[in-house]
Amino acid sequence: MDLYSGYINKLIEELAGLPGIGSKSAQRLAFHIINMPKERVDRLAAAMMEARDKVRYCKECFTLTDSEVCPICSNVNRDHKTIMVVENTRDLAAYEKTGKYMGVYHVLHGAISPMLGIGPHDIKLKELMQRLKEDVNEVIIATNSSLEGETTAMYIGKLIKPTGVKVTRIASGVPVGGDLEYIDEVTLLRALEGRTEL
Amino acid sequence: MDLYSGYINKLIEELAGLPGIGSKSAQRLAFHIINMPKERVDRLAAAMMEARDKVRYCKECFTLTDSEVCPICSNVNRDHKTIMVVENTRDLAAYEKTGKYMGVYHVLHGAISPMLGIGPHDIKLKELMQRLKEDVNEVIIATNSSLEGETTAMYIGKLIKPTGVKVTRIASGVPVGGDLEYIDEVTLLRALEGRTEL
Repeated sequence: MDLYSGYINKLIEELAGLPGIGSKSAQRLAFHIINMPKERVDRLAAAMMEARDKVRYCKECFTLTDSEVCPICSNVNRDHKTIMVVENTRDLAAYEKTGKYMGVYHVLHGAISPMLGIGPHDIKLKELMQRLKEDVNEVIIATNSSLEGETTAMYIGKLIKPTGVKVTRIASGVPVGGDLEYIDEVTLLRALEGRTEL
Repeated sequence: MDLYSGYINKLIEELAGLPGIGSKSAQRLAFHIINMPKERVDRLAAAMMEARDKVRYCKECFTLTDSEVCPICSNVNRDHKTIMVVENTRDLAAYEKTGKYMGVYHVLHGAISPMLGIGPHDIKLKELMQRLKEDVNEVIIATNSSLEGETTAMYIGKLIKPTGVKVTRIASGVPVGGDLEYIDEVTLLRALEGRTEL
């Protein structure tokens, strides 16, 4: 691709290094950026560098924030005795959007994956156990319903049980509005196992 | 989405303004960028600003380049009497990748689109006509096979014919490897009209 200017090539290369951006999208983005007003390019570049520099982990729940303690952990109206464990900040945001969960969170920043060589020490698990030394009523495990998420949930469950703190796992089943015809067998069996009386 | 840090929100917002990046992808990208090594973020940001600042139009063919005249136009081994007209630099790159075209290009930076209010004066058409005052053998119109591309091709054809310069249009038909079953009717009819003797 040395037909483009060196600057364009460099930009395309950098963009193609981002997740979910292939070489075609990187090309399209690069040409778009070149044609953007200068202020907008500067703003985008500054937003990247600033976010990278200023954002850090909340010292309580380890979500990404720009203060020492995140807005959720510093909110006295939330139930600090209920901790929902999630894999990452995006999952936290997904539950926050429901507006119904009033407890606090704990962000693991990953899930146990023997395949990828990610063990219990590579995620914020020690930090979760540390928090359980305070007065905690319930730990709700909301890791994903993937192999890694389930492994992590089981591992955490086993770890917490001896401490006497209540541990629960979010329900797994047919999504609302889901058409049974298009749902995989594992989910259908899960939904059957988890059936509740009407 | 004020659950995230202000810096993250700002970055997500800026990213979501790019073409082909929705709010979900913008979130994913933002979190990826925050976790990237600082040097990589700085390099990406610098690549953007540099490309935006340094890249300009070739004064001959109007492709994007970082020198006054692009490498293709300044190559004496290319046939400067054959000009291929394309809509944008990406299309130029697509033909360059074939490695078989030895003429030069003219980049219009758009196509005539009455729907979008883009007229002949909004693309580099005056500049093309200017180039025809030099000794030119053939103008090959390689605008896209879309409504806008065809309109532009017809318009340019009519404009150039009176000057006596040969004008051609790239062939339109069934793509190589294309399965007739899945090809639209217009393309099939085009392929039929453009049939050549074996």
